[in-house]
Amino acid sequence: MGDPLGTAVVGYGYWGPNLARNVAECPELELRALCDLDPARLEMFAQRHPEARAVGELEQLLADPAIEAIVLATPPQTHHALARRALEAGRHVLVEKPLATCLEQAHELADLAREVERVLMPGHTFVYSPAVNAVRELIQGGVVGDVHFITSSRMNLGKYHSGGVLCDLAPHDLSILLHWLEEPVVEVAASGSSVLREGIPETAFLTLAFAGGSTANVQISWLAPRKVRQMIVVGSQRMVVYDDTASDEPVRIYDRGMDVLPPEPANFGEHQLIYRTGDVVIPRIEPQEPLRLELEDFARAVRTGEEPRSNLALGLEIVAVVEVAQASLREGGTPMGLAPLADRAAA
Amino acid sequence: MGDPLGTAVVGYGYWGPNLARNVAECPELELRALCDLDPARLEMFAQRHPEARAVGELEQLLADPAIEAIVLATPPQTHHALARRALEAGRHVLVEKPLATCLEQAHELADLAREVERVLMPGHTFVYSPAVNAVRELIQGGVVGDVHFITSSRMNLGKYHSGGVLCDLAPHDLSILLHWLEEPVVEVAASGSSVLREGIPETAFLTLAFAGGSTANVQISWLAPRKVRQMIVVGSQRMVVYDDTASDEPVRIYDRGMDVLPPEPANFGEHQLIYRTGDVVIPRIEPQEPLRLELEDFARAVRTGEEPRSNLALGLEIVAVVEVAQASLREGGTPMGLAPLADRAAA
Amino acid sequence: MGDPLGTAVVGYGYWGPNLARNVAECPELELRALCDLDPARLEMFAQRHPEARAVGELEQLLADPAIEAIVLATPPQTHHALARRALEAGRHVLVEKPLATCLEQAHELADLAREVERVLMPGHTFVYSPAVNAVRELIQGGVVGDVHFITSSRMNLGKYHSGGVLCDLAPHDLSILLHWLEEPVVEVAASGSSVLREGIPETAFLTLAFAGGSTANVQISWLAPRKVRQMIVVGSQRMVVYDDTASDEPVRIYDRGMDVLPPEPANFGEHQLIYRTGDVVIPRIEPQEPLRLELEDFARAVRTGEEPRSNLALGLEIVAVVEVAQASLREGGTPMGLAPLADRAAA
Amino acid sequence: MGDPLGTAVVGYGYWGPNLARNVAECPELELRALCDLDPARLEMFAQRHPEARAVGELEQLLADPAIEAIVLATPPQTHHALARRALEAGRHVLVEKPLATCLEQAHELADLAREVERVLMPGHTFVYSPAVNAVRELIQGGVVGDVHFITSSRMNLGKYHSGGVLCDLAPHDLSILLHWLEEPVVEVAASGSSVLREGIPETAFLTLAFAGGSTANVQISWLAPRKVRQMIVVGSQRMVVYDDTASDEPVRIYDRGMDVLPPEPANFGEHQLIYRTGDVVIPRIEPQEPLRLELEDFARAVRTGEEPRSNLALGLEIVAVVEVAQASLREGGTPMGLAPLADRAAA
Repeated sequence: MGDPLGTAVVGYGYWGPNLARNVAECPELELRALCDLDPARLEMFAQRHPEARAVGELEQLLADPAIEAIVLATPPQTHHALARRALEAGRHVLVEKPLATCLEQAHELADLAREVERVLMPGHTFVYSPAVNAVRELIQGGVVGDVHFITSSRMNLGKYHSGGVLCDLAPHDLSILLHWLEEPVVEVAASGSSVLREGIPETAFLTLAFAGGSTANVQISWLAPRKVRQMIVVGSQRMVVYDDTASDEPVRIYDRGMDVLPPEPANFGEHQLIYRTGDVVIPRIEPQEPLRLELEDFARAVRTGEEPRSNLALGLEIVAVVEVAQASLREGGTPMGLAPLADRAAA
Repeated sequence: MGDPLGTAVVGYGYWGPNLARNVAECPELELRALCDLDPARLEMFAQRHPEARAVGELEQLLADPAIEAIVLATPPQTHHALARRALEAGRHVLVEKPLATCLEQAHELADLAREVERVLMPGHTFVYSPAVNAVRELIQGGVVGDVHFITSSRMNLGKYHSGGVLCDLAPHDLSILLHWLEEPVVEVAASGSSVLREGIPETAFLTLAFAGGSTANVQISWLAPRKVRQMIVVGSQRMVVYDDTASDEPVRIYDRGMDVLPPEPANFGEHQLIYRTGDVVIPRIEPQEPLRLELEDFARAVRTGEEPRSNLALGLEIVAVVEVAQASLREGGTPMGLAPLADRAAA
Repeated sequence: MGDPLGTAVVGYGYWGPNLARNVAECPELELRALCDLDPARLEMFAQRHPEARAVGELEQLLADPAIEAIVLATPPQTHHALARRALEAGRHVLVEKPLATCLEQAHELADLAREVERVLMPGHTFVYSPAVNAVRELIQGGVVGDVHFITSSRMNLGKYHSGGVLCDLAPHDLSILLHWLEEPVVEVAASGSSVLREGIPETAFLTLAFAGGSTANVQISWLAPRKVRQMIVVGSQRMVVYDDTASDEPVRIYDRGMDVLPPEPANFGEHQLIYRTGDVVIPRIEPQEPLRLELEDFARAVRTGEEPRSNLALGLEIVAVVEVAQASLREGGTPMGLAPLADRAAA
Repeated sequence: MGDPLGTAVVGYGYWGPNLARNVAECPELELRALCDLDPARLEMFAQRHPEARAVGELEQLLADPAIEAIVLATPPQTHHALARRALEAGRHVLVEKPLATCLEQAHELADLAREVERVLMPGHTFVYSPAVNAVRELIQGGVVGDVHFITSSRMNLGKYHSGGVLCDLAPHDLSILLHWLEEPVVEVAASGSSVLREGIPETAFLTLAFAGGSTANVQISWLAPRKVRQMIVVGSQRMVVYDDTASDEPVRIYDRGMDVLPPEPANFGEHQLIYRTGDVVIPRIEPQEPLRLELEDFARAVRTGEEPRSNLALGLEIVAVVEVAQASLREGGTPMGLAPLADRAAA
């Protein structure tokens, strides 16, 4: 390992402090500076990180050659302009999810990163969660069997974003689903409801179809006083429940399959499903901080040129699905197809 | 109370034995006979209920004047013909849910019951569940506040019906939702997927809009090896979680609301939602067998002429919603509106 | 299988109705009669079991040659006299736990049964619990390793017995512990406290030493409004938690051992225990009614002469330990040794 | 508030890093130095706290007038000598629990602190736990009613101390029990078992009697692979379960009492206990780091001269009870009385 990557964080609101702390603790990175518009936040940062500079303008960071990488933790609508400026100034950029608020801007950033040969990485932190990866292995390793469907409930009470809950929470579910299934979404229907301000839903329900035939139903809301983060994967061999709020035992594997019996005549010619009973297994999952792993992966991508796990293709796919979901939502929930990935990339 | 109501059960498959046992134990009813096509089932019944007759033909029951009421526990596609025959023969009829497999037949039965002045009652057992009624009181009594949305997950491994999971499981969710909200459904979107036989989905996702502005998302499946029966009600004042598999503590009230703060300029003009923290309360719910309460309500309806809690209007509404959901499902999930109740009744 | 065993139940209080129902449903037994002093209870029995006689005197049962076996569900202090009379009259006897309220009377009954060559079986129902037996297999099969210690908490709110909580609840814990470990108790200390009536403790704590070196701590109480029935087995290889109130998942196996590292000098010469991390397994346990299995075992013992699982040796050992525990409790908790089993049998 | 208290931490093993981090983050304290014998640990400290000195000798700290307070996180057997030296040098001292390994040395330290007019505070962290204090309010505020008994299970896998599990874990239970009940222990019985080294038990069971009539049973062990930290308080009005491993919902109040009915003749003259059913309440408990609160309380005690919550009287009582428990354990579990507090203080 060479010298640590000189890094600055932009934005010190909700997520920025976590990023700054992890940059400071990660040996592969060195926290050089923070940028925020709000003097009070700069002051808070300065107390916690006296070793780093605190500035009010992005340009002050870009003028400093010791800052090689920018970590963006600003609101989604600012991602495009700030990431673009940082890339143009020759910096590697880690952007908090979502990469951008529309597919066109996301592609523009991706193209620019390719052109200037810098790393542009979206921060889909859940793909670094040990529990999420344990479930991924169960799916990709065949333990679950064919995935019939997945449900997800993600609710909590939180900060209001002008982009609505779809833009804020759906990228989490999508990053996990795409990481698990490794298949593109081919159709999405979304409906939502607004309590506070017309047109900015705080609650949304999504139904997704994947290329391989799996389906998913996603319930997201900002209005639930109790945090809910549960996903259920139902496969032909096993069922897996992943509950992110059950910190000690986040994953449960129901080692019970079913067999399909041929129709009995006495039973009106119907199939019969029967239990193949088995145990429940709660696998041991070594706790690790996903954000720390994400930053290490970013540093590795800069150093080696290898793709990070949370890569641009994933980030673009997520922006594409959210964009179509927003369209479906505006149309009152009508299902809408997504163009094949190849076509989208070309667009 | 007068003499117990002379009652016969038709159908001794999955649910019939529960009905027969409860009829036998309920003082307001007297179990006089059972009818089933299968001699093995008749034999099983005879051993358990030596005091009652076991016959192979409905007509044998209808010829017996001591049998005043018929309880139908046969497959859904037989409900219309059997209930019609029993009503024509002047009997009161309790029909297992759903009332019929299409709205037209359901209305025909309802009209006939009115004409012959007999009770026709659909058996929506969940509206007699003490836990369901505890949640209803929290909603109708204003404790929950405005209902923003409700989610429901109902999964298990079970018997395959030719009507698909929509016809089999959705009536449960609908009976609970309608009983809780007391508002008609105005729009429904449904998508489903089939693993075993094309066109007969074992998994379905529904999104419902209610007249008062609440929405609901329902996940139902026959393919999940672990039983899931969870509903979450999110209101402006409180959140209620009802888990029917948590037998000791089925209802949890999250006595935490939220307040909406005005936008702060530093916060990009966004609203802020904050927690109003409070306790969780698990109300004491007296265990009672819902099926027993349902049969008592049936006997009371026959005796007094009063509407039972699981009444015809509820049964018709459920058949109507399922019918539109089936149509939406065939159309690939396109949301479809329901005619106002009044118009439907007239139809 | 020959004819079913003609059986009468004596006592129709708390437990008697369960016994009567199971006798009636068990093909190996035939419920012929019930005896109780209370006419109201006889009437209740007669309604539920019209096929059987209901009498007020034990002698009426013993005069009936069709009654071959007596099931005693009367208060503990009556066990000795009633069981003795039934054995003298040549009947097989199943006695609810405990066999008797003192060791001398228990031995007298055991000797009498041997003499008249009739089955005398104490009803330690927990040894027929599928979950208890699943844990027994884990211990006896070596999965748990050496059993270091076992804790047990058994609390609920219940009927007040003049014998105190030791006599009422401790036999349950003892039957399970002896069934699991298959080793005699060599020492017991018991302390207790009384709230309602001096000298009759409603709460007691027991510490037990077993011949093989394992120890156990038992907490029993009638004063706890919430039912607690949890036992923890800590072994050198695995830890098992058995929670009888968690009906779906009563047993959890913590597949985590520990290794003992040699002392490090820097560590003040102390051993270090480290985790050998593993999964948690919740084994599938087929639900079966323990009382039904107990009655079948009784019928089998009568028919074949084989020892039932809940046998006299177990019943005598439990009475012996409870007797010494009562003595320790009277002495304020002083630990007291038990004579070796062989000597006790000879006493 | 004046200047922060210049503070040094002694010992950087298991608990020292937590103390150092909290000292650094607490505005009332200023982390000036660390002392440890092990160069590797000093190096680890230096990396994390570059602003503070790292030294190998206590005398180096005591030579620095800017260090006003010493926080001792060394093994128990060193507490007496190091605390004594620091007090003699005029420093305020916070000692990790237990205050000392025998009562005589604990009293000597207490006397010395009084003489030199410096704060000597034992670090019983649990008395700063928000959940522990929530239960204390329920008990002291009368919600629980008369406390009939308390059970405690504290198990995990951990570091081996030459003092045995009694010295290591029992102080936690004792600090909580004494903080809850505010009554001295009048009798204790302890039994233990050793697997690794004769005479140093890894598992112990304690039975405690309190002056006011409450009793407690405590199960502690180092051998349990799964962490258990559960305490149950059974009172005449309510039952409270405190589970320290259930981080979101550590306290549950069973709002169910019981009533004692007079004996019925038909019931063999026995009392009957019946349920007064009620709800379960899970109170909202604001998460706060107990160690941080403990250090703030220490700083406040130094500044104002007021008694800290974890005060010397508590520390001395705990050492006294552990000492008698060790004696009882050596005697095989014989219950032993404790001298009244007043006499002990005079001893």
